[in-house]
Amino acid sequence: MPKLITTRTRIADLGKPRIVVIGGGFGGLEVVKNLRGLKAQIVLFDKFNHHTFQPLLYQVATSGLETNSIVAPFRKIFSRQTDFYFRLAEVKAVAAEENSIETSIGSVKYDYLVIATGASTNFYGMSDIEKHASFMKNIVDATKLRNRIIRNLEYALLTEDAEVMNSLMDFVIVGGGPTGVELAGALTELRKNAFRKDYPELDMRQMDIYLVEASPRLLNGMSEKASAKALEFLEEMGVHVLLNTAVKSYDGYEVELSTGKRLISRSLIWAAGVKGNPIDGLNPESITRGNRLLVDEFNRIKGYENIFAIGDVALMEGDAKFPKGHPQMAPPAQQQGRLVATNIRRLIARQPLKPFRYFDKGSMATVGRHKAVVDMPGGVRFQGFFAWYVWMFVHLMAIVGWKNKVFTFFSWMWSYISYDRSNRLIIGRNEEKLSPDELKGT
Amino acid sequence: MPKLITTRTRIADLGKPRIVVIGGGFGGLEVVKNLRGLKAQIVLFDKFNHHTFQPLLYQVATSGLETNSIVAPFRKIFSRQTDFYFRLAEVKAVAAEENSIETSIGSVKYDYLVIATGASTNFYGMSDIEKHASFMKNIVDATKLRNRIIRNLEYALLTEDAEVMNSLMDFVIVGGGPTGVELAGALTELRKNAFRKDYPELDMRQMDIYLVEASPRLLNGMSEKASAKALEFLEEMGVHVLLNTAVKSYDGYEVELSTGKRLISRSLIWAAGVKGNPIDGLNPESITRGNRLLVDEFNRIKGYENIFAIGDVALMEGDAKFPKGHPQMAPPAQQQGRLVATNIRRLIARQPLKPFRYFDKGSMATVGRHKAVVDMPGGVRFQGFFAWYVWMFVHLMAIVGWKNKVFTFFSWMWSYISYDRSNRLIIGRNEEKLSPDELKGT
Repeated sequence: MPKLITTRTRIADLGKPRIVVIGGGFGGLEVVKNLRGLKAQIVLFDKFNHHTFQPLLYQVATSGLETNSIVAPFRKIFSRQTDFYFRLAEVKAVAAEENSIETSIGSVKYDYLVIATGASTNFYGMSDIEKHASFMKNIVDATKLRNRIIRNLEYALLTEDAEVMNSLMDFVIVGGGPTGVELAGALTELRKNAFRKDYPELDMRQMDIYLVEASPRLLNGMSEKASAKALEFLEEMGVHVLLNTAVKSYDGYEVELSTGKRLISRSLIWAAGVKGNPIDGLNPESITRGNRLLVDEFNRIKGYENIFAIGDVALMEGDAKFPKGHPQMAPPAQQQGRLVATNIRRLIARQPLKPFRYFDKGSMATVGRHKAVVDMPGGVRFQGFFAWYVWMFVHLMAIVGWKNKVFTFFSWMWSYISYDRSNRLIIGRNEEKLSPDELKGT
Repeated sequence: MPKLITTRTRIADLGKPRIVVIGGGFGGLEVVKNLRGLKAQIVLFDKFNHHTFQPLLYQVATSGLETNSIVAPFRKIFSRQTDFYFRLAEVKAVAAEENSIETSIGSVKYDYLVIATGASTNFYGMSDIEKHASFMKNIVDATKLRNRIIRNLEYALLTEDAEVMNSLMDFVIVGGGPTGVELAGALTELRKNAFRKDYPELDMRQMDIYLVEASPRLLNGMSEKASAKALEFLEEMGVHVLLNTAVKSYDGYEVELSTGKRLISRSLIWAAGVKGNPIDGLNPESITRGNRLLVDEFNRIKGYENIFAIGDVALMEGDAKFPKGHPQMAPPAQQQGRLVATNIRRLIARQPLKPFRYFDKGSMATVGRHKAVVDMPGGVRFQGFFAWYVWMFVHLMAIVGWKNKVFTFFSWMWSYISYDRSNRLIIGRNEEKLSPDELKGT
């Protein structure tokens, strides 16, 4: 195979302003969408070729949804948008003084830059946990976790040693936010409806699900009422909820808790926090709390005229209701994405910029069948049956792509009627290798 | 993590005859299903935890179907069957004199053994092709091929060198059987309906699809009429069909053909043949043509009383219509599976065994929208529109699991109406790493 190519981004110069967007999450999509029709060239960089609907990754991990239902290829999403360019690449650094970015496939100039790189799992420097824990930020992570859950049950069949069997059957979820709560609930439903039938050789009462939360309550971002009800739901479903408890260490087998208690599990799922993914090359002072980029009220990074940051990676001060920055969820990212699109239009038209006003839509979490909690703006709160339908409706509407909406709806209907979560699959490269050595715990 | 386990299969001794089935393909599933109700213990070994509907892998590779639609977890399929045991493991060898098999998780005794290990891709000793080619035998293979097709187009955007661009955009499919024909057709539809919209920067007329077949005609197992029509369909759709042509070598970039012609492509898909997957430890004389296990008219391996082989890995002589053995397709495997279940019942009941009688249901292949060829038994042959509907109906009925049938039906309807193949995803571990070095062709 001859060595022939000089790698380059090959983005045609259209003689129009070029707007480069890094990251196609909730925020990045809104920027691109809302720039439609502008006489400008839009370039989207992402290291995946598809958008991922992160709030439902936990359903992929727990065999509830097909992987394909919650992802949408960028080129398909924007196939009708002219002057849109997508490049599959990792962005390595910004050279702001040259108005260019450095990527894995070469460098490219921009007139306006939007950093929408989101957040990644924060292990708070605990490298043992980073090494051994599962987490969920993309489809590969979720599939790996699904493989692990099912493979460990297959392994649990092979031992008579009670401790080893428990290490394979027990799950420790760290972090009582929406992801942790939803995952714990989904695992109890898998245990009750699917695994009991799948593994008659195992005693499913031995499958313990722990949810460990450092603060005094679950769902810290929500109302006290929602927290209390989520706790009640989870305990009803048989989850061991440990509040005021942190994880101190994890060697892939033994979990040491701040209370002195020890748990044995080969599956620790870390959902205890995220940190922003800023890009190298920016003024170090622009990086603030949570590794996020400090932005002004127009979502511009402090000190730059034409560089914006939005969503999980951005932190805007000055909102009295959110002194530590807006929550790292889809709605602020989407709203900021729309604002930045508007402000880029205004910059080009030499109009004054508009400041960000966060419209709080409230928040919600689902625990299980007919069990969810919803906090609406204005103090409207409800839990249970109706909340569960609202949760499903809101998520269904938010999924990108009509086919995905329809298929997710059918999957949920099917599960609802059959009580089944049918994608109990081990599909993966490493997971294929069935190593008894691993089982021996080397 | 302490070393604690002695690995073992842990299959309980029920004091009943134990029937071990190796491989859960079309044949293996039929054996297990048809032993239902027998006072015996059924143990299924497979290295995957799910059955794969291999005839539709090419649709996964060409973004037409969700991965999950064509697989079904064994434990779910047999959740209502008592005395059924599944073990996720690789079987390494048979020790026939001890009536036991050696697996990656330990050894296990059997009273009756059914080898249904199928076939794998045959590279006929050409290690360069084995190293560089794509092939499709399971979901991981199909996903890797899908990743490669889409990733290469993303890379093609990055070069101005015409040869390099063509090496990334051109596809060479080797083998004019059903897989090769169906894959070539699906690629033309991707090119026409999806890629043209996805990649306005690329000139899709540059995307050449070659189908290389060593014999004088396509679909050798079918009628002359079907072959001629398939050729006509493919050429109409813009596939370059090269008959009487073999591939001599492939270095990952340049394909050398037996005609002296050279093609440039980074995607060679090998669908030119399979070989049986027999298991070590059997009498070497039982391995015959095509690496298949020679069986008698009862599907017993010659020289053994209680070891059967069925499907692609078995070769039964004596059928005048199929002197070289039955075709390596689903129907013979399924029919032999049912026969072996019956014969095991008869052995246990000390009744005489029944010989195999192959009921030829005919064969079919699809080329594209409204384009298929069907040969029915009794010389009934038809091609085109109606054949295409028959092909879809037959495949839909054959897919394992009601949910999979329904979801595949919806996917096909969606594609039919929208002209789209929407799963154009790169999801994978290695494929995530975007290495410009690879692009440089090191």
